[in-house]
Amino acid sequence: MIPNLPEPNETAHELTRLLDELAAYSDGTNPEEGVTRLLYSPSWLEAQRYLSSTMQAAGLAPRFDAAGNLYGRLAGRDPDAPVVLTGSHVDTVRNAGKYDGAYGIVAGLVAVSYLKKKYGDPIRPIEVVSFAEEEGSRFPIAYWGSGNAAGLYDWRQDGTELKDEDGISLREAMLASGFGGREQEDARRSDLAAFVELHIEQGMVLERMEKRIGIVETIVGQRRYAISLEGAANHAGTTPMTMRQDALAGAAEVIFRLEALAAQWGEPLVATVGKIEASPNTPNVIAGGVAFTVDVRHSDEWKLNAFCDLALSEIERIALRRRLRHRITPWLATKPVPMSHALTRSTERICQELVLPYRKMVSGAGHDAQLFPTLCPAAMIFVPSKAGISHSPSEYTEPGLLADGARVLTAMLYELAYEEKST
Amino acid sequence: MIPNLPEPNETAHELTRLLDELAAYSDGTNPEEGVTRLLYSPSWLEAQRYLSSTMQAAGLAPRFDAAGNLYGRLAGRDPDAPVVLTGSHVDTVRNAGKYDGAYGIVAGLVAVSYLKKKYGDPIRPIEVVSFAEEEGSRFPIAYWGSGNAAGLYDWRQDGTELKDEDGISLREAMLASGFGGREQEDARRSDLAAFVELHIEQGMVLERMEKRIGIVETIVGQRRYAISLEGAANHAGTTPMTMRQDALAGAAEVIFRLEALAAQWGEPLVATVGKIEASPNTPNVIAGGVAFTVDVRHSDEWKLNAFCDLALSEIERIALRRRLRHRITPWLATKPVPMSHALTRSTERICQELVLPYRKMVSGAGHDAQLFPTLCPAAMIFVPSKAGISHSPSEYTEPGLLADGARVLTAMLYELAYEEKST
Repeated sequence: MIPNLPEPNETAHELTRLLDELAAYSDGTNPEEGVTRLLYSPSWLEAQRYLSSTMQAAGLAPRFDAAGNLYGRLAGRDPDAPVVLTGSHVDTVRNAGKYDGAYGIVAGLVAVSYLKKKYGDPIRPIEVVSFAEEEGSRFPIAYWGSGNAAGLYDWRQDGTELKDEDGISLREAMLASGFGGREQEDARRSDLAAFVELHIEQGMVLERMEKRIGIVETIVGQRRYAISLEGAANHAGTTPMTMRQDALAGAAEVIFRLEALAAQWGEPLVATVGKIEASPNTPNVIAGGVAFTVDVRHSDEWKLNAFCDLALSEIERIALRRRLRHRITPWLATKPVPMSHALTRSTERICQELVLPYRKMVSGAGHDAQLFPTLCPAAMIFVPSKAGISHSPSEYTEPGLLADGARVLTAMLYELAYEEKST
Repeated sequence: MIPNLPEPNETAHELTRLLDELAAYSDGTNPEEGVTRLLYSPSWLEAQRYLSSTMQAAGLAPRFDAAGNLYGRLAGRDPDAPVVLTGSHVDTVRNAGKYDGAYGIVAGLVAVSYLKKKYGDPIRPIEVVSFAEEEGSRFPIAYWGSGNAAGLYDWRQDGTELKDEDGISLREAMLASGFGGREQEDARRSDLAAFVELHIEQGMVLERMEKRIGIVETIVGQRRYAISLEGAANHAGTTPMTMRQDALAGAAEVIFRLEALAAQWGEPLVATVGKIEASPNTPNVIAGGVAFTVDVRHSDEWKLNAFCDLALSEIERIALRRRLRHRITPWLATKPVPMSHALTRSTERICQELVLPYRKMVSGAGHDAQLFPTLCPAAMIFVPSKAGISHSPSEYTEPGLLADGARVLTAMLYELAYEEKST
């Protein structure tokens, strides 16, 4: 059942206010440089404290776990009932916008605050979470917050010796910001009924399709490879075309071919070469070596693997024909993570009842939600990103669209926590 | 007429000795790092002084001009006759081999020294030149030595404010090494009968074709362009293939296409993309911008221009289809320089008489010889470069091949300076 929902203009205003306040907690004060809030940094800690007091003011009981995840709890009438969890991550990339991660936290706050005022205590407890970390921007590890909550990582032993750019270890940073104490609440959750994450799309599909809500069916699996091709760095003037072993021409053929293959396979497959380095990288010398990356994503594991097999055999074929030595180093492999069918269907029904144009889609980016399906049903809701821009100070979503997302989330939380029979 | 020529083994030995001695004048003493001898540096000045005393010992009268070019003169019986000039450049790139430039100087010395001993004074004066600079490695200007000799540059006013990496100007460096004085001999020559340059091929054509001598008919003309393509730096996961403006995929198509076009046009056309920079150059972000260079060379000016027109229109076409903004900046354009037909024919005849397998060819690299055709007939002789390697400590030519080149040069100098009727 769709409950009474908060008034859109008022919600938009409230979300905008909270996002602006949260964005103020940033390294650097020049707004043109956007928000930089790295795990366990002073601005990160201030942001978590700000959210903690905002939770308290909204009638939620805040608490931190030992990894620095912040939870704000609205107690349920059934104290033993599993917890309905919503939220996202508080950390940012360097020079980020103010929506990625932050939106899911503040929308959760606004939604739960509304529900408490309007409907009182729920049957099942609801918690809003501000995860410590998702981006992997300070230390070379991502999903540190949700990973600790979901049991992928254990803050006592995992990643503790990873270093940031200044040589500070993850453990040192964690302790310095007041976390990682043995007496603190453990991070791992085993009491969850559901996890719902609201997030900006970080892509341009919803905007182009003129949809207001995206319902994530699957978070894609990813494969990343480092490829190197090695030929011979000869003189650009004295080496006839027929005598060359041009590593850059070889890389160009590979990149052009992978793009065409990916286009043939069609959505939701994407394949990207985003990074390339040539050597010696001099205008009048044929490139003797080229290193580049390949990033492949698909929501279907079998198809992801099949495409990668094909792509790698194409690379080998092209290298062999051109007499280039090649080396392929896989360095990231994650499986596609399907969201809960039941929650996805509920979200779809809510959008239909609210007459919000929506699209079922895959998430091409990774999100905290992908950690949870092993623990509980998980769902993800997207709102459009203007021009698809994210990880940039130009990241933007209209307040009206922010409010729509929050209204869908409110309805979902109501169904999950207030109705006698949850989905 | 082919004169008596120096004994090959002895010549090989003498050339090797002189090349090793000259290579000792280098910044840095680690032989694995090769030779680094930049214009007007202390090692450069020592090398010129070494060559000056070697000239003197061989019976040539050495003198420097105001630009730092060193000439060793064997006077002619006809003091008013124009000068037969041979030699090459003494400077090197950073971490060079010991043959590029140096070989042409020491072979000239060995040839003239032999001719003087064997045949006494020539009819026309012969000079061996050690040009101050050709590579453009210290200051952003090339052919500084031969350019001053040929009147392309004037050391009094050209390039004097160009700076090296340490902020030292060309004028300061010139003065510090004792040149650029008003009282010194001017650099510009107007008394030349012919210029003959012996040089390593810096390519692999002679080796692959099993030839011992290359006779340069033309030094190629060159065009260089800086190309930039600009698309949109979107998220590699959330941007479907159909919504991308991927500047790197665009650059890859261009590079692949230019290579195929160049192969279709056939020799002696060469087209090279040797340098590429992508932005933001991150594995999981679609490249929003790519800058790369295009280097095109041909011995025929009309064909060089026609190919460049075609290549640039292909770049425009590809950019337009992909919705990429493009910018094309030409930054180098030189015309092909034909060598003297008469001298080329003489060289060919000499090779035939000496039973040396030879190939008439274009030089895909620029050389000092290209400055001279406006002043006098000019010729260029190549010897093979092992595996085509140059500008590297691995640069190598067998002593026997070095001797062959010196024997051909000796025969040419004899014909030009000792015979009553020069070619």
